[in-house]
Amino acid sequence: MNDFQFYNPTRIIFGAGSIAKLKKLIPGKARVLLLYGGGSIKKNGIYMQVADALRKHELFEFGGIEPNPDYATLMKAVKLVKKNKIDFLLAVGGGSVIDGTKFISIASLYKGEDPWDIVSQGLGSTLKKALPIGVVLTMPATGSEMNRNSVISNREKGQKRSFGSEKVYPKFSILDPKATYSLPKEQIRNGLVDAYVHILEQYLTYPVDAVVQDRQAEGLLLAIHEIAQQALKTDPPNYDARANYMWVCTNALNHLIGVGVPQDWSTHGIGHALTALYGLAHAESLAVVLPWLLWYKREQKQEKLLQFGYRVLDQKMQKYSERIDRTIEALSAFFHSMGMPTTLTAYGLDPDKVAEEVQAHLEAEGFTRGEHRDITAVDAAAILRMSR
Amino acid sequence: MNDFQFYNPTRIIFGAGSIAKLKKLIPGKARVLLLYGGGSIKKNGIYMQVADALRKHELFEFGGIEPNPDYATLMKAVKLVKKNKIDFLLAVGGGSVIDGTKFISIASLYKGEDPWDIVSQGLGSTLKKALPIGVVLTMPATGSEMNRNSVISNREKGQKRSFGSEKVYPKFSILDPKATYSLPKEQIRNGLVDAYVHILEQYLTYPVDAVVQDRQAEGLLLAIHEIAQQALKTDPPNYDARANYMWVCTNALNHLIGVGVPQDWSTHGIGHALTALYGLAHAESLAVVLPWLLWYKREQKQEKLLQFGYRVLDQKMQKYSERIDRTIEALSAFFHSMGMPTTLTAYGLDPDKVAEEVQAHLEAEGFTRGEHRDITAVDAAAILRMSR
Repeated sequence: MNDFQFYNPTRIIFGAGSIAKLKKLIPGKARVLLLYGGGSIKKNGIYMQVADALRKHELFEFGGIEPNPDYATLMKAVKLVKKNKIDFLLAVGGGSVIDGTKFISIASLYKGEDPWDIVSQGLGSTLKKALPIGVVLTMPATGSEMNRNSVISNREKGQKRSFGSEKVYPKFSILDPKATYSLPKEQIRNGLVDAYVHILEQYLTYPVDAVVQDRQAEGLLLAIHEIAQQALKTDPPNYDARANYMWVCTNALNHLIGVGVPQDWSTHGIGHALTALYGLAHAESLAVVLPWLLWYKREQKQEKLLQFGYRVLDQKMQKYSERIDRTIEALSAFFHSMGMPTTLTAYGLDPDKVAEEVQAHLEAEGFTRGEHRDITAVDAAAILRMSR
Repeated sequence: MNDFQFYNPTRIIFGAGSIAKLKKLIPGKARVLLLYGGGSIKKNGIYMQVADALRKHELFEFGGIEPNPDYATLMKAVKLVKKNKIDFLLAVGGGSVIDGTKFISIASLYKGEDPWDIVSQGLGSTLKKALPIGVVLTMPATGSEMNRNSVISNREKGQKRSFGSEKVYPKFSILDPKATYSLPKEQIRNGLVDAYVHILEQYLTYPVDAVVQDRQAEGLLLAIHEIAQQALKTDPPNYDARANYMWVCTNALNHLIGVGVPQDWSTHGIGHALTALYGLAHAESLAVVLPWLLWYKREQKQEKLLQFGYRVLDQKMQKYSERIDRTIEALSAFFHSMGMPTTLTAYGLDPDKVAEEVQAHLEAEGFTRGEHRDITAVDAAAILRMSR
């Protein structure tokens, strides 16, 4: 097991009706900025629940944080924060709203000239101040509600960058499984796949005798298999399946299974390029990369692929090469069972053309990822050419 | 899944040599009280590592915190804290030292007349102030290094009580697997059994569709099975097995697997009486109760016993009564494989006599435990009569 630090002070308040607890979670004298996305919270009743809980608070709002939150949008919120002397940020939404709010919390107190430096120069870990953040989670997927990470886009510069800081851990996150009831099936599918890939990025590398983390990761993967079909049911939704869906997404990326082990994150890196260039949803981009990346890296990842197949996908054949084949097939089949395609061609994209374009895109940013830092833009292209 | 809150702000610093990091973890101007137990840390080099890391700090010390830490001993430390204006407590030891330090941290700032009220009247959750605590863990077992619980004895009153408070979460806990190298085999065995039973107390009850928590609990149980024999090796000790042993004990009782599910804790309740009356070590007391408690409650616990057997102990026979039989036998066999007895008779105790005495002891304290609050002193006696 590798050495590590683990620290995660976010308070989770979990259960139906827990949005009403906001009232006591935010200091009574706080000047609160409610941040949200495209406005679905005004249709599904969540906005009303939040406003009702905070009717005695001084409440401001900022809507319109887009998927892959844009620096320019977030800087408008920073301006609002400063103008109104906001001292508490309440993110009501999914990963994009929470990630955007994390940036706003740190940028609002940043003294430097250009707040983009926070992201581009990785200042997250050095800055000491950030506004406190609370979260009402409406779309489980990214785990941002219980981690210190944030991914921000800068459309003007054509960049998508992440930063991390202990200062942006949410003080609390409210997880009400009923908040997922209005989600379209496709977004639940995306959330499940996103969480599944988060786990594999931290697990499917090479063994370092981290038995505890491996078993925890496998447990979460098995949980996703167990609940996926029930969680996807929309009419009517199943409370417990939604509760497990919500909680497994949080646990997939709250740092616990990732401590003390090597991590990969190349599927995410290649996927980000597919989202930027072709508009695939984040989870869609992951699903068209991962199975082919595993084929491509099957020798380097052999030991973990065998373990994953045996323990999670019930592939127990003795012949190793056959077990690895069946394991990757079973993974794809699982994604298909949720209605998630695993090829570029399923989206009408030409793998050869995509490979070429993504390679150029990744070369421009000096891409190297993977647990051995040996997946380059050239490898990404080779992987994408297989995605058919 | 039941509603829940989860909150755990303890920072874990994990790895060989991490004791040296104490220097930066404790504020330079702090007046530090180092608390420890019987003095083994002066023989195994850990005291020297701590003293070396803190050579520029103002350091006081208080040794002699006994197993099942006694109120009278802890109040001596409280006196020392007040006299020397201590403002940081550093617990170097196992569960008893850490639990004792948690009490000292809250009792030192308590304004009421009788600090025993903190424990006897359950004031833990209402008190707002406690001194900050740091931990160097030397004996993995109880999980106290990453939770808000503490168990304190009062030998004068013949009581053993627990309290919980968010204020006593350690600010940090240093987990250096090499700190376990000087432990006798028996204490490692005890730690593994203690952690295993902690998991079962939170898992082996009745299903509430908490799929994530179930899979996490099963993952930790499987990890213990996987590492136990290697962890017990002493000559030479195996670093990774010790690292997994240490980390699994922490994860067994850091609240994560226990949120949103019913909990039992009757094995612990009955075990405490056996420790009080006959001096069995805590883990020994658990192992002579648990298998028989499971026989006794096999109908009520049927669904979880079947799941436990199938997923953890590889008992997959279709006939349910047979699978439950084999599951409980396999659990006992696992304890035996670590050299841990599972009967009172193995300690030369007469089950009938013990049953009678424990019943009286538990009746006096109004004992009721179990996930249905239906295990009484009479049930405890019936369970102990089987332990032969």
